[in-house]
Amino acid sequence: MLHNILKDRKLILASQSPRRREIFDMLHLPYSVRVSNIAEPLTDENPALQAKHHAQNKAMAVLSFEDNDEIIVSADTIVVIDDMILGKPTDKDEAAQYLRLLSNRRHKVITGICIAHKNRWVTDHEITEVSFSNISEEDIWDYIRTNEPMDKAGAYGIQGFGSQFVQRINGCYFNVMGFPVHLFYKTIKDFLSYEDL
Amino acid sequence: MLHNILKDRKLILASQSPRRREIFDMLHLPYSVRVSNIAEPLTDENPALQAKHHAQNKAMAVLSFEDNDEIIVSADTIVVIDDMILGKPTDKDEAAQYLRLLSNRRHKVITGICIAHKNRWVTDHEITEVSFSNISEEDIWDYIRTNEPMDKAGAYGIQGFGSQFVQRINGCYFNVMGFPVHLFYKTIKDFLSYEDL
Repeated sequence: MLHNILKDRKLILASQSPRRREIFDMLHLPYSVRVSNIAEPLTDENPALQAKHHAQNKAMAVLSFEDNDEIIVSADTIVVIDDMILGKPTDKDEAAQYLRLLSNRRHKVITGICIAHKNRWVTDHEITEVSFSNISEEDIWDYIRTNEPMDKAGAYGIQGFGSQFVQRINGCYFNVMGFPVHLFYKTIKDFLSYEDL
Repeated sequence: MLHNILKDRKLILASQSPRRREIFDMLHLPYSVRVSNIAEPLTDENPALQAKHHAQNKAMAVLSFEDNDEIIVSADTIVVIDDMILGKPTDKDEAAQYLRLLSNRRHKVITGICIAHKNRWVTDHEITEVSFSNISEEDIWDYIRTNEPMDKAGAYGIQGFGSQFVQRINGCYFNVMGFPVHLFYKTIKDFLSYEDL
């Protein structure tokens, strides 16, 4: 399990997201946070590739080539509907617009992850389908008043008030929260076992 | 949203489960906990019916017919694989046996809920499919050593160390945690709107 694999490691989480810290805490991982201020402009590129590129950029921006012990972990989460990528809403009206778009529909949440150590790194991504129920205009504004949507891709958080709108998901729940736990477990196990050879 | 629908209500959660309290807290619901000590023997009856019966029994056991304001909410969660119902493991060996059974397979988690108010009540249930990855014997015992499996149906918790074993789910995540948030939202809205007529 992860807390055993990583117990004597120097793990750096290259992310400001409180949800990712929550997941690392849930897994009892020893880690510290180191973030860069790189921008993540969204382009027309394939969404999964973008998520991976952004994750890799975040990792590379904080990787120290002096400290060979560090393992950097980063992630980038995006919401995709109708081939449109939804980032964090810029204001309340955009949040309302995003929520109307997601209402009564299915969308995809994609998280790219990157693990970097010494002169090696690996990236991968996970996709989860999320089905929203119909959200009334009253609920949209009630929800925006909670302030939960404002700092989140797609203008919702699955792990808070937003849980009420989620009829079902197909895939990894933690991926929607911002960090695909099972994928990380599998990937880092492979990544570190190769190192031991 | 739930925190608005229920803000001036006297909500009683008829459950000892810390996970259900966590979910109520996440939704910012005002509530108090009142539990009975009724046993929940598992039988050969249809699993969804059993989950609903157990939930209803829990609600009825704490319903006060003197206080007309109270809304009682209860739930019962079971894990089903190969038509076998897994409750909480009685000891570490049984926990290991359950985890071996779930490894590399798909199983169902069923939560029955009951909402009771005055002389009316409603029950319903939600089913989520959970796919486990292959769990090594080493991971099984590492996991048991965390103590997480011991008080949980099916010997795992999806919201803790157990998250590493969960490849994907199909359905409601919070249902696996022990309380189907979206179903509750829909059901209590209907239940209380009927009352207002």
